Amino acid sequence: MRAGYHALFIPGPTNLPERLRTAMFVPSEDQRSPDFPKLTVPLFNDIKRIFKMSSGHVFLYPGSGTGGWEAALTNTLSPGDKVLTSVFGQFSHLWADMCRRHGLNLDAIEVPWGEGVPVETYAERLAADKNHEIKAVLVCHNETATGVTSDVAAVRKALDAAGHPAMLMVDGVSSIASIDFRMDEWGVDICVSGTQKGFMLPTGLSIVAASDRAIGETTRAKLPRTYFSFEDMLKLNKDGYFPYTPATPLLHGLRASIDLLEEEGLENVFARHHRIAEGVRKAVDAWGLKLCAREPKWHSDTVSAILVPEGFDAGKVVSHAYHRYGLSLGAGLSKVAGKVFRIGHLGWMNELMIMQALAGVEMTMRDLGMQVEAGVGVAAAEEHYRRSAAGASSTRAAA
Amino acid sequence: MRAGYHALFIPGPTNLPERLRTAMFVPSEDQRSPDFPKLTVPLFNDIKRIFKMSSGHVFLYPGSGTGGWEAALTNTLSPGDKVLTSVFGQFSHLWADMCRRHGLNLDAIEVPWGEGVPVETYAERLAADKNHEIKAVLVCHNETATGVTSDVAAVRKALDAAGHPAMLMVDGVSSIASIDFRMDEWGVDICVSGTQKGFMLPTGLSIVAASDRAIGETTRAKLPRTYFSFEDMLKLNKDGYFPYTPATPLLHGLRASIDLLEEEGLENVFARHHRIAEGVRKAVDAWGLKLCAREPKWHSDTVSAILVPEGFDAGKVVSHAYHRYGLSLGAGLSKVAGKVFRIGHLGWMNELMIMQALAGVEMTMRDLGMQVEAGVGVAAAEEHYRRSAAGASSTRAAA
Amino acid sequence: MRAGYHALFIPGPTNLPERLRTAMFVPSEDQRSPDFPKLTVPLFNDIKRIFKMSSGHVFLYPGSGTGGWEAALTNTLSPGDKVLTSVFGQFSHLWADMCRRHGLNLDAIEVPWGEGVPVETYAERLAADKNHEIKAVLVCHNETATGVTSDVAAVRKALDAAGHPAMLMVDGVSSIASIDFRMDEWGVDICVSGTQKGFMLPTGLSIVAASDRAIGETTRAKLPRTYFSFEDMLKLNKDGYFPYTPATPLLHGLRASIDLLEEEGLENVFARHHRIAEGVRKAVDAWGLKLCAREPKWHSDTVSAILVPEGFDAGKVVSHAYHRYGLSLGAGLSKVAGKVFRIGHLGWMNELMIMQALAGVEMTMRDLGMQVEAGVGVAAAEEHYRRSAAGASSTRAAA
Amino acid sequence: MRAGYHALFIPGPTNLPERLRTAMFVPSEDQRSPDFPKLTVPLFNDIKRIFKMSSGHVFLYPGSGTGGWEAALTNTLSPGDKVLTSVFGQFSHLWADMCRRHGLNLDAIEVPWGEGVPVETYAERLAADKNHEIKAVLVCHNETATGVTSDVAAVRKALDAAGHPAMLMVDGVSSIASIDFRMDEWGVDICVSGTQKGFMLPTGLSIVAASDRAIGETTRAKLPRTYFSFEDMLKLNKDGYFPYTPATPLLHGLRASIDLLEEEGLENVFARHHRIAEGVRKAVDAWGLKLCAREPKWHSDTVSAILVPEGFDAGKVVSHAYHRYGLSLGAGLSKVAGKVFRIGHLGWMNELMIMQALAGVEMTMRDLGMQVEAGVGVAAAEEHYRRSAAGASSTRAAA
Repeated sequence: MRAGYHALFIPGPTNLPERLRTAMFVPSEDQRSPDFPKLTVPLFNDIKRIFKMSSGHVFLYPGSGTGGWEAALTNTLSPGDKVLTSVFGQFSHLWADMCRRHGLNLDAIEVPWGEGVPVETYAERLAADKNHEIKAVLVCHNETATGVTSDVAAVRKALDAAGHPAMLMVDGVSSIASIDFRMDEWGVDICVSGTQKGFMLPTGLSIVAASDRAIGETTRAKLPRTYFSFEDMLKLNKDGYFPYTPATPLLHGLRASIDLLEEEGLENVFARHHRIAEGVRKAVDAWGLKLCAREPKWHSDTVSAILVPEGFDAGKVVSHAYHRYGLSLGAGLSKVAGKVFRIGHLGWMNELMIMQALAGVEMTMRDLGMQVEAGVGVAAAEEHYRRSAAGASSTRAAA
Repeated sequence: MRAGYHALFIPGPTNLPERLRTAMFVPSEDQRSPDFPKLTVPLFNDIKRIFKMSSGHVFLYPGSGTGGWEAALTNTLSPGDKVLTSVFGQFSHLWADMCRRHGLNLDAIEVPWGEGVPVETYAERLAADKNHEIKAVLVCHNETATGVTSDVAAVRKALDAAGHPAMLMVDGVSSIASIDFRMDEWGVDICVSGTQKGFMLPTGLSIVAASDRAIGETTRAKLPRTYFSFEDMLKLNKDGYFPYTPATPLLHGLRASIDLLEEEGLENVFARHHRIAEGVRKAVDAWGLKLCAREPKWHSDTVSAILVPEGFDAGKVVSHAYHRYGLSLGAGLSKVAGKVFRIGHLGWMNELMIMQALAGVEMTMRDLGMQVEAGVGVAAAEEHYRRSAAGASSTRAAA
Repeated sequence: MRAGYHALFIPGPTNLPERLRTAMFVPSEDQRSPDFPKLTVPLFNDIKRIFKMSSGHVFLYPGSGTGGWEAALTNTLSPGDKVLTSVFGQFSHLWADMCRRHGLNLDAIEVPWGEGVPVETYAERLAADKNHEIKAVLVCHNETATGVTSDVAAVRKALDAAGHPAMLMVDGVSSIASIDFRMDEWGVDICVSGTQKGFMLPTGLSIVAASDRAIGETTRAKLPRTYFSFEDMLKLNKDGYFPYTPATPLLHGLRASIDLLEEEGLENVFARHHRIAEGVRKAVDAWGLKLCAREPKWHSDTVSAILVPEGFDAGKVVSHAYHRYGLSLGAGLSKVAGKVFRIGHLGWMNELMIMQALAGVEMTMRDLGMQVEAGVGVAAAEEHYRRSAAGASSTRAAA
Repeated sequence: MRAGYHALFIPGPTNLPERLRTAMFVPSEDQRSPDFPKLTVPLFNDIKRIFKMSSGHVFLYPGSGTGGWEAALTNTLSPGDKVLTSVFGQFSHLWADMCRRHGLNLDAIEVPWGEGVPVETYAERLAADKNHEIKAVLVCHNETATGVTSDVAAVRKALDAAGHPAMLMVDGVSSIASIDFRMDEWGVDICVSGTQKGFMLPTGLSIVAASDRAIGETTRAKLPRTYFSFEDMLKLNKDGYFPYTPATPLLHGLRASIDLLEEEGLENVFARHHRIAEGVRKAVDAWGLKLCAREPKWHSDTVSAILVPEGFDAGKVVSHAYHRYGLSLGAGLSKVAGKVFRIGHLGWMNELMIMQALAGVEMTMRDLGMQVEAGVGVAAAEEHYRRSAAGASSTRAAA
């Protein structure tokens, strides 16, 4: 065992705050007790604020994000239903693939990896779909494989412009609770998330926010479902119970997570993620490297996918950092395997923590013979964090 | 908050052993790291011993037992496939209901609640099914709602006698790791379990043991599936990884659970459950009450459903015990609501622990005006435990 | 390893409430940080309410009750100072012995074990001490070895009646936070306690409550001291700091302990201890046995020392209960070794928990051949707890 | 609450390894049970290896390092005994002060802060002490206030050269388990340590290693003692028990700590501390600053005390780092208050962790207007760690 804490900078699971960790450290519980709803009913209400939604329901399944995608599709669609989506990374690809497997009629627009949702193409397809055959439009809010954040609000505008009634479904696994998301304002029907990213918990809950409209679709939707059934859940959730034994430790963790997020303030959480991410991007600049995300508008505040120079293998960066320095980075997946390595900078993160990743990457790149000067990335990040620190302007006077 | 520990005697989630609890208390982890398979590969192998299987695979999904049922069906069956099952309690009912929802052609034999799988009827149906239209035979090994254990080996015999190739699928949620189960010997194709019963962990993993034969069926099976797909799991599990982020704390918990079970010895674990359960049954006798399970051959060693005398409401037993004495019992479900209350006596349990349940039930019954003498149930259990204690015979001589 | 939880019914350390356990589960901390006093300053204030004191100070040393005794003596006395005490059990004996070792001039009244502080003899000695040579009067509030609680208020009255200025020092290790204690009203100068009894925490803090008068004595007291020095502590405690690194996890635990005690209500905590203890005494009666405590006025609500019949070895009760049933009882110490076994019933305790001890003792006694009927102790306790339960009178009507 | 983990770089308490943390997470325990010695007896033996001693005994008191000092003195010395020591920092000062308070006849050599034990002066005093009036020679192995490590072996040589029988007592609080220490080889009679530094646990145990010779002195030593009495401890420790309730969670923690240290290998632990410390010193050089330790021979591998330039207040460095960046550093104490800040780099530490301290100090110094270039300290440390990493030389070839 390597001495010291392992440095975890993957784009999820994220680092576990102490309070959340102990919140989950509960004995076994009677999930049918009269006291159980004291935990769950407020939880169902309060988690809506994280999605910025005022109606609908947030479903909590023992599961992962992938399970949430399945819940979204099977509760609202029928075999053969037309679905519009776009693929520009491993996770947008996988959700599209799931649509196919469940017999949906998929229109998946291929987009270069490094770009985001092609809003204009979406607009064209929606405008052209006079018969409203498209039942759902899928958006991967934050593509974890490439560090690309897409513009969900713009997709809503395209739907509205076309007067199109398709449901808007969002993969918010690596954005919710880290990057601004507005269920109500953006007219999102379903947003899928999980516990292991912005909620800062271990994997284990599929979190599926659904609008009243989406819930209403269950009566028509013919895809088979039991485990992920909205109807079964709603029947018992309304009194604070579940149709099968829930993962109670994670429910306590989620309670603590929401409280922690709200104590910091959701907007402050977003600003903190942006500030940390900007420092990482300054470091990438200082190293003379490029992000996979092709334009600033697509820069993700939760994960940065960094292109290695020609002739180098990004996989070696990840492997060397892990073995030599006890640093976990994200590897490039699928089309960008070997081309990018990823720094996850979401969740319970601050400026000194991220220094571990930056220093570790610098050391690793130099070990591997890349032309990067020692300390320049860290220095660039330091200067950014100093300038942007709360109370930064008044320091010199006071000092 | 009531002082002292809450007394948890529901049939799951069960009491959490200290070692399992701390085993799960891990920081966030890199589930794609080169070290991760050091945890998972041995886990995949070692858990087979708990099911007494030597080939096939045990799938571990973030999920619950219900999810495991869905995995069993969707990976091996196609819409319209004929399934033979029997219903004699809430859980056998729910699995049958799931079959219907997924478009299977269900033959569900209704059996009085309190009895188990009707082996002769199964034998008749199988013998009559000359064309082998029945693709799967379902058995609820231990019906948690009624405290009834069924004879899985007898169902295998019926299949063999009929020369019938149907798959044998078992719900082992409340039996595995508490009551003897033999995957290989009984020719079981799929056995579904979860973490929160005999494995003594929180809810959170669907545990699905599948034979090679069952795994082979995936190529034919047309029910849609992604989250619970055997194929996706197998592709990554073979190297120790998962197709989506696994619930790592529970994997560590499961590791510790298997170790704990094997340190005690699986046969000793079964014997302990039987001994504890016998003490409870002695107490029920002493109280002058009857079990819901109609015959000794159906007595469950993990949960006892106890019939209250005519004119009393079993729901009040559960409620009074909870509020007055901090004791969680299982309520009667569905058809037996109000008629039975249940004492869960599985998992991390010993003879002094169960005294809390017995004393609490005695006090509750007397509070509610039932004709039960104080202490008689406890006394009967004490005498049983004394006689059956390890080393009991030699005590008087030594004392 | 024996399955199930070990049953812990020793008179300390006591069972750890979940909340206290997780409260102590903190990362390492900067004990000189500007935020640290936010924990400690309220703690110093709030713990006074547990002692029912409004001035003075409560000292918190990394240590145990024994260390607290030493703090009491060395901070307030000088070599050769006369001290009046009485010995009627192992713990009153040990404190007296410590006085001798530190060169104090000890007047230790020997009292039969099973009785408490001899108030009349104290009164005589004090009245006779016209020159006020006695500097301190020692009282063991609750003698853990014999289960005897003494009358501290009566000692105060004896002091007042004699117009005697001696300090009144109390060993409250196994009484504080379980049995009523009134620092101010009884004019106690020093009361020594620890974390592992009524505070329901692990061993690790000596808790020493001192009046302003006792603190004032430090200027005169010549016994050498550094580690336990009141002066060093006070100098830093006033701002929330410590003269050496404090045991921070236990400080967090103590914070949670005080909160838990006050949520239940201190008087309710005392009443609960009395109710639980009465049930144990009913069981002892039903077994036909006697307590070591000779009169009801001395019955301790935190521990019962039970005399075994002639011809039996109490040590075998303790040993058999431990090995056969996983039950920890207290053994007889020193003069009462082999004659008594002890049931600790203090701390985080309720009526179902204590049933484990009672049933385990019954089974043990029968295993060892004592003439005790199965279940009678439990039955007697059940009936007591039923009658004395909150809301007991209204049950039948409602049922 | 500030987001992200707090960065703890004080010279103790040190960061808590996960394994040690969960090892301490135990329920309450019966410290008089027949199983308890299974924990304690191997612990008493195995901890000797950490001190490199083969006889004598290691005493474990609920307490802190200060308590350990008191145990050392009171068990082996009598009032008026002559003690030789030297003062060159806050902790050597405090131990000397304790000697005075306990009535010892102290010869305390004042040494400039930044230097270590004056071996030649010791040699002179010992040679001059023909009547062997000096009963004990005290050495602060690692002065935590100034980051100075002294040469214990040289003091042993001075004693031997003078043929002087005085006991050699060492304060090893911030050296044991981090910096090489050899009880037997150096002929040390008592070495005092605690849990919160190299043992990587919370504060709470005084750890006092004593030679047989030191233990033998108890029969002569007349300083009063009870709590810290060697004799009382030995009487019970020999069978695995304690004279009063021990702090059991910390005993479990200590067990895990020894195991962790030995898995890494004690010499590897020392080498790791040296490597980390060297990186810090490279950073200090790069910043153009000086250590308080005046010569390389005194450089401590566990803590670096860094002098701020004239005109700056080191207290502001500590305060700014804490408030702005969530970084805990050690402040200057007593004579060096305002002149130095300290980086603790001992315990569960690695090269990426220390980057947090270095980056945080850089940012802080720049915020406060010091002439330090961004990133230079981190860069210097990076280069040192790269060169000195295990397997560093072979990297380029492999990459």
